[in-house]
Amino acid sequence: MNNRVSIAVLGASGYTGADLVRLALTHPGVEVVALSANAKAGQAMADIWPHMVPYRHLPPLVKAEDIDFSRVDFVFGCLPHAASATLLSQISGPRIIDLSADFRLKDAATYADWYGGAHPAPALLADAVYGLTEFARATLPSARLVACPGCYPTAALLALVPLARAGAIRPVNITINALSGLTGAGRSLKEANLFAEIGEAAAPYAVGHHRHMPEMEQELALAFAAPVTLSFTPHLVPMSRGELETITVELNGASVADARAIIEDFARDEPFVHLLPDGVPASTRMVRGSNHVVLNIAADRIPGRAILTVAIDNLVKGSSGQALQNMNLMAQLPEPTGLDAAPLFP
Amino acid sequence: MNNRVSIAVLGASGYTGADLVRLALTHPGVEVVALSANAKAGQAMADIWPHMVPYRHLPPLVKAEDIDFSRVDFVFGCLPHAASATLLSQISGPRIIDLSADFRLKDAATYADWYGGAHPAPALLADAVYGLTEFARATLPSARLVACPGCYPTAALLALVPLARAGAIRPVNITINALSGLTGAGRSLKEANLFAEIGEAAAPYAVGHHRHMPEMEQELALAFAAPVTLSFTPHLVPMSRGELETITVELNGASVADARAIIEDFARDEPFVHLLPDGVPASTRMVRGSNHVVLNIAADRIPGRAILTVAIDNLVKGSSGQALQNMNLMAQLPEPTGLDAAPLFP
Amino acid sequence: MNNRVSIAVLGASGYTGADLVRLALTHPGVEVVALSANAKAGQAMADIWPHMVPYRHLPPLVKAEDIDFSRVDFVFGCLPHAASATLLSQISGPRIIDLSADFRLKDAATYADWYGGAHPAPALLADAVYGLTEFARATLPSARLVACPGCYPTAALLALVPLARAGAIRPVNITINALSGLTGAGRSLKEANLFAEIGEAAAPYAVGHHRHMPEMEQELALAFAAPVTLSFTPHLVPMSRGELETITVELNGASVADARAIIEDFARDEPFVHLLPDGVPASTRMVRGSNHVVLNIAADRIPGRAILTVAIDNLVKGSSGQALQNMNLMAQLPEPTGLDAAPLFP
Amino acid sequence: MNNRVSIAVLGASGYTGADLVRLALTHPGVEVVALSANAKAGQAMADIWPHMVPYRHLPPLVKAEDIDFSRVDFVFGCLPHAASATLLSQISGPRIIDLSADFRLKDAATYADWYGGAHPAPALLADAVYGLTEFARATLPSARLVACPGCYPTAALLALVPLARAGAIRPVNITINALSGLTGAGRSLKEANLFAEIGEAAAPYAVGHHRHMPEMEQELALAFAAPVTLSFTPHLVPMSRGELETITVELNGASVADARAIIEDFARDEPFVHLLPDGVPASTRMVRGSNHVVLNIAADRIPGRAILTVAIDNLVKGSSGQALQNMNLMAQLPEPTGLDAAPLFP
Repeated sequence: MNNRVSIAVLGASGYTGADLVRLALTHPGVEVVALSANAKAGQAMADIWPHMVPYRHLPPLVKAEDIDFSRVDFVFGCLPHAASATLLSQISGPRIIDLSADFRLKDAATYADWYGGAHPAPALLADAVYGLTEFARATLPSARLVACPGCYPTAALLALVPLARAGAIRPVNITINALSGLTGAGRSLKEANLFAEIGEAAAPYAVGHHRHMPEMEQELALAFAAPVTLSFTPHLVPMSRGELETITVELNGASVADARAIIEDFARDEPFVHLLPDGVPASTRMVRGSNHVVLNIAADRIPGRAILTVAIDNLVKGSSGQALQNMNLMAQLPEPTGLDAAPLFP
Repeated sequence: MNNRVSIAVLGASGYTGADLVRLALTHPGVEVVALSANAKAGQAMADIWPHMVPYRHLPPLVKAEDIDFSRVDFVFGCLPHAASATLLSQISGPRIIDLSADFRLKDAATYADWYGGAHPAPALLADAVYGLTEFARATLPSARLVACPGCYPTAALLALVPLARAGAIRPVNITINALSGLTGAGRSLKEANLFAEIGEAAAPYAVGHHRHMPEMEQELALAFAAPVTLSFTPHLVPMSRGELETITVELNGASVADARAIIEDFARDEPFVHLLPDGVPASTRMVRGSNHVVLNIAADRIPGRAILTVAIDNLVKGSSGQALQNMNLMAQLPEPTGLDAAPLFP
Repeated sequence: MNNRVSIAVLGASGYTGADLVRLALTHPGVEVVALSANAKAGQAMADIWPHMVPYRHLPPLVKAEDIDFSRVDFVFGCLPHAASATLLSQISGPRIIDLSADFRLKDAATYADWYGGAHPAPALLADAVYGLTEFARATLPSARLVACPGCYPTAALLALVPLARAGAIRPVNITINALSGLTGAGRSLKEANLFAEIGEAAAPYAVGHHRHMPEMEQELALAFAAPVTLSFTPHLVPMSRGELETITVELNGASVADARAIIEDFARDEPFVHLLPDGVPASTRMVRGSNHVVLNIAADRIPGRAILTVAIDNLVKGSSGQALQNMNLMAQLPEPTGLDAAPLFP
Repeated sequence: MNNRVSIAVLGASGYTGADLVRLALTHPGVEVVALSANAKAGQAMADIWPHMVPYRHLPPLVKAEDIDFSRVDFVFGCLPHAASATLLSQISGPRIIDLSADFRLKDAATYADWYGGAHPAPALLADAVYGLTEFARATLPSARLVACPGCYPTAALLALVPLARAGAIRPVNITINALSGLTGAGRSLKEANLFAEIGEAAAPYAVGHHRHMPEMEQELALAFAAPVTLSFTPHLVPMSRGELETITVELNGASVADARAIIEDFARDEPFVHLLPDGVPASTRMVRGSNHVVLNIAADRIPGRAILTVAIDNLVKGSSGQALQNMNLMAQLPEPTGLDAAPLFP
């Protein structure tokens, strides 16, 4: 026995689950005690993930129902929406960090509108902490249930919330264009996601109606203290990891330099958020495999507007890395513990 | 001797020059009689381009000054800006199709502002035809000098001009996000363009000040009969060819269905412009290697706005294919001659 | 009515079927009159293939049994093995060009060993012509049933057969390493073929037991007039199209220059086979999207051995292009008809 | 002051230098005290490497001559050959770990033959330790100068040396086909290495005469206690990192199972070498970004032969990771210190 926290990962056969395990393997304060993957129960991580070949000591994949949660300090939910809330609502004992969409929206009716069905556990919504770490440090230490933000909201909110709170931008005509690598589409088997069909292919999807919209609007409304309706267009581009957002905003009388100073103040003491030098736009190659966030701001050619660029690794800061960052705060560990690997480039 | 038109390609060592030669090889009405590449004069196309290995019969690369232009019907300028106008202004005899930026802007002062130097041949600007084929069919047959549009303006204008002319959209807050493959960056040797550094990398560039902006604004001002200032952010994504633009516009009272009908009218008899079925966004994989244009329109979540998506191959419809399309009209050939190859997918 | 030959493509929902249609669209002597895809019957090619969007005039996909073969001159079988022979053996009337493995092996017992079941139509094997075009020109014009070679055998045999026939190499220790793009794995839905999992991944497969081995051995035995057992290791590398083989051989007393001269003689009048300049190894970027074959020979460091390199596009010369090349000869059309598009590069 | 070892990295503007810094950033026993890059002296790592943006605290790049080596415990030479030996031979004080080719070959005449010039410091050759860690543990602790193996020899020797030493394979007809990502070609600016030209491109290079050949032959001759001449063909394939070798060998009477058992014995206690389950070939996706080595063996179809497959990350185990692994042993640190990050996948 040691003084590491014990974690279970539900859904270790998906990309977010696997990346959580990857990071946990070198996290000095964590011991992986259980891994579930219902359709692949009985196999080893090394059987279903090429990069897990050297890690034969990991627990075998089991069905979630076969996990003894009394031995677990933290459960990470890496399951599809609806399935996640259904399962997690039945677990008592461990604290819960959910990476699905189920506990992000505060309003069960909005959830039903966007996710196509009644919320499986609406009673839990009120107490769930929206775990965008940089804005949730006050509430995370005592949280029992944390909803990790979607990857697109993570990037967008890190760029927009400080400006919104400071009143430097207006809550109208916010237009977000996002580029994502294919891990953002999950490990689902679709012809359109085959290597031969994605190579040399760039295209938007879910134009006008992506499920991360209400989540961004909810959090921006809090930051602006005003309702927000925004434009958001995600694209898949031929890369595996990485997410880039280019956001046009209307400045609220502030100059671009004013806005830049606000971001600078915000980023100064953040371990993972980095304001780039003036004129250097964010790029996914600055963050691959790491929990870092890079961002910048520039003047738009349309007077009174500015262009924000922000990049994250969708599986790390956009998902599993942020989940561990949250866990660190929940467990009173130093926030960057286990998340200090530098980006992989080239 | 035959009844093919004789063409010379200046700058055959760059991507646009090489793609023009590629297309010309199977154009039944064209004979390539001269190829220039000053720094590589004396070599064969097969020496400097891997895909030209089977075409040892092509003329050798020479210096432009060594071409006998009296044998040439059409000169294609695939040179960098400024160099292009300087050279082309000295050529008499053949008709000229310039793929550089030099004859696109009507105003020499605007050119000087954006391209960093006085225009080398301002006297030619008035008569140059802006060769976005679909909108220039009346003037191309008699044109002596045609300026082929930039790749980004080609895509943007094909999507926006019909709507602007019809009064369906407003000349404000037009926001264009563009994704380009690396051929858009040219064959220039920069570390940032090496395979190892671009793989898995997506990033914007020239944020707020790309040189295609004044060109788009000039043409949109004509279509709107009103001045336009637009927002344009290009990105490089890890693919070789292809260009995708996602454009948000404010509808001028029209519905999205109204706007769609306008595009449908425009595209109906166009050989290369294709309105996609409702709900299918444009993708670069629909057009690779071909002269085709695919586009679509959808409602934005912000009321009163719409999102246009449009894709082209930046080297074909965005450059060399459109140049040949223009030549066909100038030479009284059927417009699609030599441009009928289907896209290459996967 | 015109004087084009009418073709039907069975299995137009797979990569070889789709590439055959792509090439047929610009083949001046071909009319596509029927397309089958049992699981996708009722849809249009434009619905299931992004690059077919502009080609709404193509016949709809139907079940193979619903095709009226009396209107068809040539049937192209682009179906999986076993299914192909079962279906094709029931068709009378049109001449048949099969792209599956079913009619390549002359010996039904060998077929059963390698393909896991009795041959569905062994009576047809004797008359099937092995359609490696360059070596089958005498028999193709009168053939009723042509078996197109596998992609790997196509490349290997074009490099080895002339040397074997000339006695310049020995029938022992022939070691073939092959690299293929992902289209070689078909459009099958496997996690290992998803973009996110293939990017940055290179690996061999079917080590020691790939089904193209007996086919290569059969044809090499004919060329050597001696039995051959060879070593063959295929690899998937992160590209969509293209196939490269690196082959080490033992020279039979001949020098590398002698062997080179033999290849030169062979390639001299071939429209699609190109011997590269000394010192330039074959590369897939020389042939992408085209029917061309590039190859070369160099001395190995082990005395008495040589290294051959050969590249093709696996879907064109390795499959659909060669099928049309065969059809041209069967239909008394000039051999390169419809296959003259230059490679697409970059 | 702490008890970390102080390191200087010469040539931090190249891929191996940068990857060494990346790994050193999270190595708990290392402090980076100096970084050189002559052509980029005066800049920060964050200025020339996108992934170094968050690490503004790193020492600035200086000219090598401006480093105070008295403060340095270990110097890592990441310079081109010849330049490396010239510079390193002038440094006294720190222990030296050279990643160039300069101290790998024991024979200065062989060096001159293959590297095109007299060796700059032949007197140092005798004492240089060939640092393939797994086979050099006895000599590393006391070494003053370590020559890290080339990436190709690292993979090949890890697969072959245990079999050679055990007498299980014969020292003839060893045929190595290798696939490398583009980082293997260095950060040099060549058109052929641009993203647009490498995408979809696979090709061999240096056919019959790659500089890693004499290095492999030198070490294999020691393992076999007999001279060896081998066949080696490297290829570049469109990925950034990763190296895969497929090696055919003649078994010396041993069965494949015998050979497998020898590898199993060798790998059992190795922290970074992993024998894959029977039937699972090595893949670069198993090791990306990590110091791991995966390998396997299978029967060849040619009787009496076997096929080995082995994969490494060329920049980690093939270069900078192995250099740190060597340093750990030289500094009496646990061998895996700082090298425990799991591979990055997808």
